[in-house]
Amino acid sequence: MQTQSENRCYGGTQGVYSHSSEATGTEMTFGLYLPPDAADGPVPLLWFLSGLTCTHENAMTKAGAQALASEAGIAVCFPDTSPRGDDVADDDAFDLGKGAGFYVNATEEPWHPHYQMWDYVAEELPALLAKEFPIDPDRQAISGHSMGGHGALTLAMGLPGRFRSVSAFAPICNPTESDWGTKQFGAYLGPDRLSWAKHDATMMMRETGLDAPLLIDTGTDDQFADLLKTEALAHAIAERRQEAQIRLQKGYDHSYFFISTFMPDHVAFHAEALWS
Amino acid sequence: MQTQSENRCYGGTQGVYSHSSEATGTEMTFGLYLPPDAADGPVPLLWFLSGLTCTHENAMTKAGAQALASEAGIAVCFPDTSPRGDDVADDDAFDLGKGAGFYVNATEEPWHPHYQMWDYVAEELPALLAKEFPIDPDRQAISGHSMGGHGALTLAMGLPGRFRSVSAFAPICNPTESDWGTKQFGAYLGPDRLSWAKHDATMMMRETGLDAPLLIDTGTDDQFADLLKTEALAHAIAERRQEAQIRLQKGYDHSYFFISTFMPDHVAFHAEALWS
Repeated sequence: MQTQSENRCYGGTQGVYSHSSEATGTEMTFGLYLPPDAADGPVPLLWFLSGLTCTHENAMTKAGAQALASEAGIAVCFPDTSPRGDDVADDDAFDLGKGAGFYVNATEEPWHPHYQMWDYVAEELPALLAKEFPIDPDRQAISGHSMGGHGALTLAMGLPGRFRSVSAFAPICNPTESDWGTKQFGAYLGPDRLSWAKHDATMMMRETGLDAPLLIDTGTDDQFADLLKTEALAHAIAERRQEAQIRLQKGYDHSYFFISTFMPDHVAFHAEALWS
Repeated sequence: MQTQSENRCYGGTQGVYSHSSEATGTEMTFGLYLPPDAADGPVPLLWFLSGLTCTHENAMTKAGAQALASEAGIAVCFPDTSPRGDDVADDDAFDLGKGAGFYVNATEEPWHPHYQMWDYVAEELPALLAKEFPIDPDRQAISGHSMGGHGALTLAMGLPGRFRSVSAFAPICNPTESDWGTKQFGAYLGPDRLSWAKHDATMMMRETGLDAPLLIDTGTDDQFADLLKTEALAHAIAERRQEAQIRLQKGYDHSYFFISTFMPDHVAFHAEALWS
């Protein structure tokens, strides 16, 4: 693992690190914020998975997570959203290929060799963090935005017992019924829709639910509302009687201005679960 | 004036606007955050001037000013750092030309026609804001980072009575004695050092001082410490018995992670002056 940069931030350290990934077969880069408390021993870890077109950097610089994470004594990891490199398959569209890994393990060509983002985020990166940093692997929480909200929800439901709390900002809720989902799952996973089901938060909520408290914020003026299908997940949550807060925030859109506005609430929500 | 974008943010609106500038003879773009209180009438205005290579966008998305500005009921304006456009003179170096206006009115060719950033920030843009937005021109404060900290300090001392409070993050303090200054002043203002003096915060502090409280934060690990010359301004402030806080922040560098860490303190500092 190589240190790309480390900056003092709210009394802790915002680092950027790269490493050779077995899962993706590429060099991967991630951001990790360590709060001041990490100097005294292992701290809980909050994952923040980013959306389409993002790298590890966008949320790290624009979401405003560090302020409250510092106070709450929580580390925050910002993974990349896809493999990178000249030999990694890509597409001209912004929502397929690089920057659009959708947190799945691709089974289809040309994506299969490197697009193994589920394994990377679910297994390889957590193991690396626990080995290299003062992180307590027994206290993890997860959040994300848009495609990353989809990632947070599906990882949390797909890995029971892993996360103590789960949240999402404007998540893609029902990708098997959305152009943000069918296109990518078709490419990465092939035409068999059975393989898609374990990557659809609404279907997973209907089938198995979530073993942790859940907070979702989505703006009423989100320009991608039709693609997110918040209503489908809200229906499934209510039907299941899942412990959850779904907040439709008046006038907010899909941007980082929306995310940063409600980030304090999300970090406080996770802090309560991680420290109880 | 054209609206480029408006995003709901902390209950207010983060807007980006463009207009045809008489001062620069170009189209100029700026960011303006209006807090929720602006819906009920004019609010105070905090200027944030950015550093080398920045546009209006960097601080607007990465400095974290909106959270506390929303609470404090203060608007925040993020101007661009230079004129832009194909017919605007430029230089290959990152610290001259576009993104590096240094908040002066250039007298020399090829810079003179468009590089009139002092007039733009001191006169034209404030008049536009007062006309187009619910801003109270009698309650203004100013801050900035690096080259923008230099701008904040020199504008404040050059325009007595204009600002109720002044702050800066890692400002260029003594440009007439720094490679971040002599190069640019030589290009924009010519070889006569007399014309440079009214753009050097340390010289102005020695000569006239500041009619408002001042807060300066600079990191002890700032990678550009030798160029900033904080020690010269600190000396001048102490010698003058200027009301000021100069804080050397242990372990912090020159980045937006440093800025965002101390932004809450700066907005609170300005709020106290603007609302008293």
